[in-house]
Amino acid sequence: MLTVFSPDHALRDAKTELSGGELVAPYECPARVEYVLEQIRQVGLGDVIPPDVISLDPVLRVHDPLYIEFLRSCWSRWRAKGNRGEAIPSVIPARGMRQRVPQNINGTIGYYAMACETAITEGTWPAVQAGANVALTAQALISQGEAAAFALCRPPGHHAARDLYGGYCFINNVAVCAQAFLDQGAERVAVLDVDFHHGNGTQSIFYERPDVMFLSLHGDPQHAFPYFLGFADENGAGPGEGFNHNYPMAPSTAYDVWSDALQDACRKIEAYAPDVLAVSLGVDTFEGDPISFFRLTSDDFKRYGTLLASLKLPTLFVMEGGYAVQEIGVNTVNVLTGFASP
Amino acid sequence: MLTVFSPDHALRDAKTELSGGELVAPYECPARVEYVLEQIRQVGLGDVIPPDVISLDPVLRVHDPLYIEFLRSCWSRWRAKGNRGEAIPSVIPARGMRQRVPQNINGTIGYYAMACETAITEGTWPAVQAGANVALTAQALISQGEAAAFALCRPPGHHAARDLYGGYCFINNVAVCAQAFLDQGAERVAVLDVDFHHGNGTQSIFYERPDVMFLSLHGDPQHAFPYFLGFADENGAGPGEGFNHNYPMAPSTAYDVWSDALQDACRKIEAYAPDVLAVSLGVDTFEGDPISFFRLTSDDFKRYGTLLASLKLPTLFVMEGGYAVQEIGVNTVNVLTGFASP
Repeated sequence: MLTVFSPDHALRDAKTELSGGELVAPYECPARVEYVLEQIRQVGLGDVIPPDVISLDPVLRVHDPLYIEFLRSCWSRWRAKGNRGEAIPSVIPARGMRQRVPQNINGTIGYYAMACETAITEGTWPAVQAGANVALTAQALISQGEAAAFALCRPPGHHAARDLYGGYCFINNVAVCAQAFLDQGAERVAVLDVDFHHGNGTQSIFYERPDVMFLSLHGDPQHAFPYFLGFADENGAGPGEGFNHNYPMAPSTAYDVWSDALQDACRKIEAYAPDVLAVSLGVDTFEGDPISFFRLTSDDFKRYGTLLASLKLPTLFVMEGGYAVQEIGVNTVNVLTGFASP
Repeated sequence: MLTVFSPDHALRDAKTELSGGELVAPYECPARVEYVLEQIRQVGLGDVIPPDVISLDPVLRVHDPLYIEFLRSCWSRWRAKGNRGEAIPSVIPARGMRQRVPQNINGTIGYYAMACETAITEGTWPAVQAGANVALTAQALISQGEAAAFALCRPPGHHAARDLYGGYCFINNVAVCAQAFLDQGAERVAVLDVDFHHGNGTQSIFYERPDVMFLSLHGDPQHAFPYFLGFADENGAGPGEGFNHNYPMAPSTAYDVWSDALQDACRKIEAYAPDVLAVSLGVDTFEGDPISFFRLTSDDFKRYGTLLASLKLPTLFVMEGGYAVQEIGVNTVNVLTGFASP
């Protein structure tokens, strides 16, 4: 399996994350994907290739142009205003307030945020843009006939909505790829999100559409980020009704229960008969993850990789979360080798 | 003029405020009201009396009971979850997400926040409750026939909505008092908010009601907190249409322009003919305020106090913001002496 990777991910190197009322060193850090890359080379998964340079056009198919312009200009605007820390919102348009973009960057940033833990920094935009290119380059491989490809994106993307960033995400890489498949001729795309956290951004982007089925296995939002989306009763709306499937699961869920949900999701994917499968691959379901509460072992990742292969679909893997930095390489590559050599 | 004051305000003594991407010492600090108290005594404004102990019933007339329970229990729940810093949300229910309260306190706190700068701390709830008692005790003085009274509340209240805290505010003291006047027989109450920041909480609580007219002079929300409410086209809704008046003003606004707006507001109040006037008294319109951008001088505060006296209404002053700590005493008391000895 080919892997697409860009060293430009390292330009995203925030020093602060708002967590538990403190500014701590971010869990979403450059070392994450370096561990994955190392493991890919160690097991000989396949070649690692650089991304093509791609215009923003496919990104703008799922994101608001003003939001992308905000991401691009946020850091310089933030600094020009005299703010001394990394860019973190302190006021947001809450219930009953107006959803309009104020001129002051200290307000603008709150308008576009769905969470405040994620600091925007000097190198964030070039890293984010490189990440989208990584995703789209892997997507193009599938379009051109590869059976599978791995987009080793960083930062992740699945929490980013049409005009919201947060949860370490800015551009929704998997959503951009799903739309690109459709724009290149696919009729139906399934997006399966196995990250520990609900893929609220992806869900929201395709919620009213039948051409993308979204399925997410994740920690119950009563207890886990993003808290305000990902409940079992969210089934899609309008023409998209019936094409959204959430599997929220309780603290301490282990592979037996988790894989039952995955098998149910696979049955729904089979019935949907998509042209292609895109997997939001987060490995924070691991028992050792510092900010999650499932109990998957490293072997379990290989097992579910094999299970995904049984769908026999062209499959794009897009890197999302996973924060037990040492083990993220092994667990991610276990999914890919389980898939590639079932 | 009688002043009501409780030393319990000092129990609210947060160490951190999220500002410019950093955790800084809060601008809203205990010294603020101590300077005011000192100046009250220095000029001999009148007696300073303690608040009565009052039940939460009048507070629950304007706030959601679950919100009040959240304020009461937040700190212990936050600490029980292992969070090490003061209680600050890092995820909020943004556009397109669900407005429901998750069980995990790290989500609950985001549900009830309209801003993330305001940390909830161990002593916050008792101080907030004491502040409401201060406001209601002063309100009762007016109901019992006093011409004017000053509630030296801390923390402030005008940003707090029915179920939202933020901007240093938790219980909306002036809104609680306005409702109490109505519940005790008043037919119409005018709330005039002269704080630099728009009183978004007060506006939202009474937005669809004709029995409270809300008027606010403030920094244009395009450029100033709270950014997402306080625009000139917000005139009330339903039965409340025509009973909400905003005067957003540009950076560097000085007394000539500001007092024109105040005179317009006074004309509207006169036409409304309320039984009582409640003034949200913030003095962050001062030229030296560190987080605001108007240009009022200390003398201007006396001048507008006199202007308010010309309305000849029973008048309750409720302390809101003001962060140029040294001068907050002089400027606040200048309003009160300008009013009391025009």
